[in-house]
Amino acid sequence: MGIAYNIGKGKYKNWIAAETDFIPEHSGKWETIFSLGNGYMGVRAATEEGYVEEHRGCYIAGVFDKFPGEVTELINFPDWINFEISLAGERFDLKRGKILYYLRQLNIKDGLLLRDVEWESPMGKKTRLSFKRFVSFSGIHSALQRVSITPLNYSGTVEFISGINGQVTNSGVQHLKESKLRLISGRIILIGEKTQESNIRIAVAATHEFFINDRKIKVKEKVQTGRRRIGIKGVCTVGRNETFRCEKFISVYTSRDKDLSKDRKPSEAAVEDRAVENLKSIKDTGYAALLKEHKEKWNRTWEKADIVIEGPDFDQLAVRFSIFHILQMTPAHDNRLSIAAKGLSGEGYKGHVFWDTEVFLVPFFVYTFPDIARNLLMYRYNSLGGARIKAADNGFKGAMYSWESAEKGTEETPEWGAVDIETGESIRIWSGELEQHITSDVVYGIWNYFQATGDYDFMCDYGLEIMLETARFWDSRLEYNREYDRYEINNIMGPDEYSERVDNNAFTNYMVKLQLERTIKFSEWVRENAADKWAGVSLKIRFKDSELEDWKEKAGKIFINIDKSTGFIHQYEGFTKKKVIDLSKYRGKVGAILEEHSWEDIMEMQVIKQADVIMLLYIAGDDFTGKQKKINWDFYEPKTLHDSSLSSAVHAIVAVDMGDPEKAYRYFSESLRIDFGENYNSSSEGLHSASHGGNWQAVVNGFGGIRIKTDGGIRIEPHLPEKWKSIQFNFTWHGNVCNIHIKKDEIILKSLSSAGKPFKAEIFGSEYMMENSGVLQIRYE
Amino acid sequence: MGIAYNIGKGKYKNWIAAETDFIPEHSGKWETIFSLGNGYMGVRAATEEGYVEEHRGCYIAGVFDKFPGEVTELINFPDWINFEISLAGERFDLKRGKILYYLRQLNIKDGLLLRDVEWESPMGKKTRLSFKRFVSFSGIHSALQRVSITPLNYSGTVEFISGINGQVTNSGVQHLKESKLRLISGRIILIGEKTQESNIRIAVAATHEFFINDRKIKVKEKVQTGRRRIGIKGVCTVGRNETFRCEKFISVYTSRDKDLSKDRKPSEAAVEDRAVENLKSIKDTGYAALLKEHKEKWNRTWEKADIVIEGPDFDQLAVRFSIFHILQMTPAHDNRLSIAAKGLSGEGYKGHVFWDTEVFLVPFFVYTFPDIARNLLMYRYNSLGGARIKAADNGFKGAMYSWESAEKGTEETPEWGAVDIETGESIRIWSGELEQHITSDVVYGIWNYFQATGDYDFMCDYGLEIMLETARFWDSRLEYNREYDRYEINNIMGPDEYSERVDNNAFTNYMVKLQLERTIKFSEWVRENAADKWAGVSLKIRFKDSELEDWKEKAGKIFINIDKSTGFIHQYEGFTKKKVIDLSKYRGKVGAILEEHSWEDIMEMQVIKQADVIMLLYIAGDDFTGKQKKINWDFYEPKTLHDSSLSSAVHAIVAVDMGDPEKAYRYFSESLRIDFGENYNSSSEGLHSASHGGNWQAVVNGFGGIRIKTDGGIRIEPHLPEKWKSIQFNFTWHGNVCNIHIKKDEIILKSLSSAGKPFKAEIFGSEYMMENSGVLQIRYE
Repeated sequence: MGIAYNIGKGKYKNWIAAETDFIPEHSGKWETIFSLGNGYMGVRAATEEGYVEEHRGCYIAGVFDKFPGEVTELINFPDWINFEISLAGERFDLKRGKILYYLRQLNIKDGLLLRDVEWESPMGKKTRLSFKRFVSFSGIHSALQRVSITPLNYSGTVEFISGINGQVTNSGVQHLKESKLRLISGRIILIGEKTQESNIRIAVAATHEFFINDRKIKVKEKVQTGRRRIGIKGVCTVGRNETFRCEKFISVYTSRDKDLSKDRKPSEAAVEDRAVENLKSIKDTGYAALLKEHKEKWNRTWEKADIVIEGPDFDQLAVRFSIFHILQMTPAHDNRLSIAAKGLSGEGYKGHVFWDTEVFLVPFFVYTFPDIARNLLMYRYNSLGGARIKAADNGFKGAMYSWESAEKGTEETPEWGAVDIETGESIRIWSGELEQHITSDVVYGIWNYFQATGDYDFMCDYGLEIMLETARFWDSRLEYNREYDRYEINNIMGPDEYSERVDNNAFTNYMVKLQLERTIKFSEWVRENAADKWAGVSLKIRFKDSELEDWKEKAGKIFINIDKSTGFIHQYEGFTKKKVIDLSKYRGKVGAILEEHSWEDIMEMQVIKQADVIMLLYIAGDDFTGKQKKINWDFYEPKTLHDSSLSSAVHAIVAVDMGDPEKAYRYFSESLRIDFGENYNSSSEGLHSASHGGNWQAVVNGFGGIRIKTDGGIRIEPHLPEKWKSIQFNFTWHGNVCNIHIKKDEIILKSLSSAGKPFKAEIFGSEYMMENSGVLQIRYE
Repeated sequence: MGIAYNIGKGKYKNWIAAETDFIPEHSGKWETIFSLGNGYMGVRAATEEGYVEEHRGCYIAGVFDKFPGEVTELINFPDWINFEISLAGERFDLKRGKILYYLRQLNIKDGLLLRDVEWESPMGKKTRLSFKRFVSFSGIHSALQRVSITPLNYSGTVEFISGINGQVTNSGVQHLKESKLRLISGRIILIGEKTQESNIRIAVAATHEFFINDRKIKVKEKVQTGRRRIGIKGVCTVGRNETFRCEKFISVYTSRDKDLSKDRKPSEAAVEDRAVENLKSIKDTGYAALLKEHKEKWNRTWEKADIVIEGPDFDQLAVRFSIFHILQMTPAHDNRLSIAAKGLSGEGYKGHVFWDTEVFLVPFFVYTFPDIARNLLMYRYNSLGGARIKAADNGFKGAMYSWESAEKGTEETPEWGAVDIETGESIRIWSGELEQHITSDVVYGIWNYFQATGDYDFMCDYGLEIMLETARFWDSRLEYNREYDRYEINNIMGPDEYSERVDNNAFTNYMVKLQLERTIKFSEWVRENAADKWAGVSLKIRFKDSELEDWKEKAGKIFINIDKSTGFIHQYEGFTKKKVIDLSKYRGKVGAILEEHSWEDIMEMQVIKQADVIMLLYIAGDDFTGKQKKINWDFYEPKTLHDSSLSSAVHAIVAVDMGDPEKAYRYFSESLRIDFGENYNSSSEGLHSASHGGNWQAVVNGFGGIRIKTDGGIRIEPHLPEKWKSIQFNFTWHGNVCNIHIKKDEIILKSLSSAGKPFKAEIFGSEYMMENSGVLQIRYE
């Protein structure tokens, strides 16, 4: 029943997740977790034939649009999965007749979605149907589908309509206008459209090949058009036990694609022509060759990105699932973009970028594909303009990053959310105005990247400007409290979104302090060691060196509300005075508390949605003693509902740090199941992207114990949970690709680079030198 | 299988049409023909639970909007039919499990839609479900639904979500913005929105009552919100053989409603408040009382509008079906609106008004509800501004009506249609520019109304201005041919849309001639008999009497291309020289010819889509001899595919005129079946409104032989088909309501008015005087 984790055999062991029953009520979950993508294009795992429960979706990174009166969102593209089938006059529909066999598999190793069905029609005709699809990982504008149909107890007609359906919307919102349908050379269908407000032209084209028992055949293709949809209708007589096969080639281009928009805004014709050109080219290459290229690209990627866990099969598969989706959702091809909170797998959070990227996802890339990490951070540089606008709009200096941003970086957080059960009116969403920690989180991401790569070029050319401009923002944001001679940040919201409009959130204040200190330190280094760069940036942003002095003064006086005697960190002022309530009945049911309490009530309770102080214990872990961690954990952990997917993995890491790998493992197991577990209602709106980054961090930075020290060096101090015998993975440190094999009592660290820079690693308190192509073998108790 | 016509028994005999099987592929047909409406609101017969094949739609007359780059259309309103059910944990879904009993009935007499189902779930639970709904005919802003659920072999939970779903679109186009969800007093749900371009505010509100075995109960109502949707979720435990019932009250208001917008544009709050106020009021009245009022209103209406046919039951039911839908689709409450080509039953033709109203539908109202006919014609007066704009835009004088118009009267015909099978590009639609006969058709409608009612007030206050302004248009449009000293109309399109850009279409030229002659005649009458009215209009439109003289000259010289020797009418110049092809394989399949021929090819053939010359033989029937009719019939009828629903009924009438009531009956039978027959793919996009008007005319003006003579009098000359023993109906002539009973050999004509004006009627060549409350009994052979 439901999801099966043990379908993969042989070389596919722990590489396949499967759906074993057809339960249309769970469509949302499957569409999300079985979504395919290549960073450019993502497509939900809707079925070819379509069911009313589905939310069909295809999203192209960066193709944002704003419907009048709403916030900018990633638009739902014309649906090319659409493929309706009639078998000897009966419509193929799994809700009718009998399902004799059903298995849908997500092959994570090869990036494939397969569905095998044996179906008996209401009239008793038995047919085997096999569906295969992939979104090309090697050619980002292409996707391929294959439908195979074998009548088992009859000969008869197979009739199909294979279309591109532009009637799809973002939950009822249509972003595309000027819909144009074309039939080219009688066999290529195309929809060309333009976004309403952002003026992006798009083209989706498709064409087909047909086979009987692998022999290519001709099928008379009749074009069918309707409003915003075009399709090919065909019919073919198929003998008993013969297999009819259709291969559908899909090509997608938009006017914002880097390979099209280099010089100027490309014309409608240019976008359409390019889509058709690519379509012809992939059709010439052929399905088999394209599939081979695609698999090879995935397999090469896995060589770098895989984590091998000797332990429960589920853990192995689930960690791969996380990595798979991180890779699918990341627009590595375009440094004007970053990762959406739901990737390219659904419409939740409207394709917006949050702190999730820098804090949860960038670390994976920093250690695995540093070039992609750099691209992701470049998004923040390229969208500095939006952050400057936000700062100015709010009366501040410099650059204030938006809590939710699209391509331009301006604030995209909606102002209103769900209806409050008591007032009957929509709840005001404050995070856009108040979750200001995002600005420090961006700098945190940059700093991590810098520490792990030593990429001074990036830092001088881009990182520095971000750091200076965002420090300027905080400089203007900090509020001086004369009475205590300290700087405060009031009326704010920390990571915990069950408290809003609070004063001096410890996480935020601490992050600002760290940010300012790092900015000062790095600025001074640049001024001394790369004077020309310093002069360039200073000139560009009219920076006065006196600003640095100001920041030094302020950074030292930022109020961090910690009880000196106990080390207890106040999440914010007054939290401990709020009402304590019994949370047990809300545990494990995300948002359950909202069904019984008004939003206003919740604001007055000691209830925490997600890691906040605990998050700080991770991010600035070296600054806190074990004892201090325990005091805070014991206070905050019982008050936390983990109603955000950003919570469990962080708790896991901090639990490892506190020497409790078993508690950590319990949190980690929960986190692995946020999308991949057996809750079939949890993921309909898209993947919880950050949780997948969190899962990776829990393994590598948590159990694997790989961390950046305060001085910028690397420390390795693993603590495997009992159920794991070993873990093994690659990581990159300052350009050196290393493989680490962590066993219960031994670490084997190999350098795979022959020309990297040797580096020092602190392992269980001792320092080791890692040479090129060297191997370290360290036993520990 | 399929549609059943014989379900109605007793007083419902020939009043009920039924669907006896659930075949979701045919949803479109049923949604259309079982649509409910009251002229203000129309709702397609989508199911409560929803299927992927459905096209759910609710339309409010006059709520038009224009999506960027597209033409104005009637918008699809938030869906309030939505009602999802789970029975003991299993989702009610007729595609799954077993259907033990299924019957859906459209009760035409009472204006009700009922669905009775016995369903066995996949787990074997048997349940009886009964659904009832009506769109109130007595209170146009209200609609009611009732869902009854009886577990038959178990006790268990009934869970439901009853919502208002604003995610619906017009085939992918979203016209509503600023979507706002509200929960009022915990039990009323509301969606408030605004159209994008036309700035109409709308509000849809709903609330519920619950019962077990007719005893009112309380159900805990949980609000559920999503993007653009709000619903009430409830759950109730129901014993075996107990009946759970939910009554859903729906209230709809918009800012363009006459009762709201009298003074100024009403505010968002005003629209919402009014919807809620009405909702509270109908809930207080209660379901049973509302249903009673609704039925009574329908029954009173039927007393005036019914046609009783002694003949095949199907004919009786089908004629009622036509009348029922005409009444449902007509916005009688608002003289700024007219009837859409698909009524309020679907999105075909986008809610636009065509010549269908004046030529096909107005006659029904002229004879049955003259006040409503007047309202419909007032639409043309109220939209004269749009017609003036169209004339000016095209370089003409006066007022040129638009081929397709919405509220304002400006041209709304889309420029592009389906993709041409040969060129691969969209086909240019010329009717907006070239189907200029619409302007004469409007005057034809006005003249008919005037002849039948003697409403001089309407004519002087409104009709005259329309007639003068449209005559001015033709005056500037007519092209003088010096060689022949005649006026021509070139580059035009007649009713037959398989010929475009032709010269001197006989129908058009004749209609223009008639129009000018009638205008001159009536103008002279007004000038003499109502000099103040004449002066008023003349001043308003700066009319010079010399214009009348000009028109006289031109009307006399309009080229009507008729062979003097034979009486043969050339549909247009050169038609007879085009290629003749074998049409047999395209007969009976609307549009089949388009699948084998390019549009350009069709233009070069002697193939006719619909009555054109034949239409003229009807409209100006008295001007042509029987012999002339036969010559033209014999030539044109074999070349006509009847690919328009406007064709068959007209052929039926002309066949009666030619003395062939059996051929007429065959055409009539075809026409009755356009929507109501057993073709399940013919009506998905909405009713063929004009065909229903045509059906009524075929009975009353065709078989019943009631016609307006050239001199304005009434002639009655029935010819019943063999299968009919008699027909009986009411008609109104100059304010006199009469009942006529036409038997094979006898006419009984009764005046039902005690204070009307006596009138003369020509019956089979003799003249009779019809006195108040009089009875004429005339035998004929």
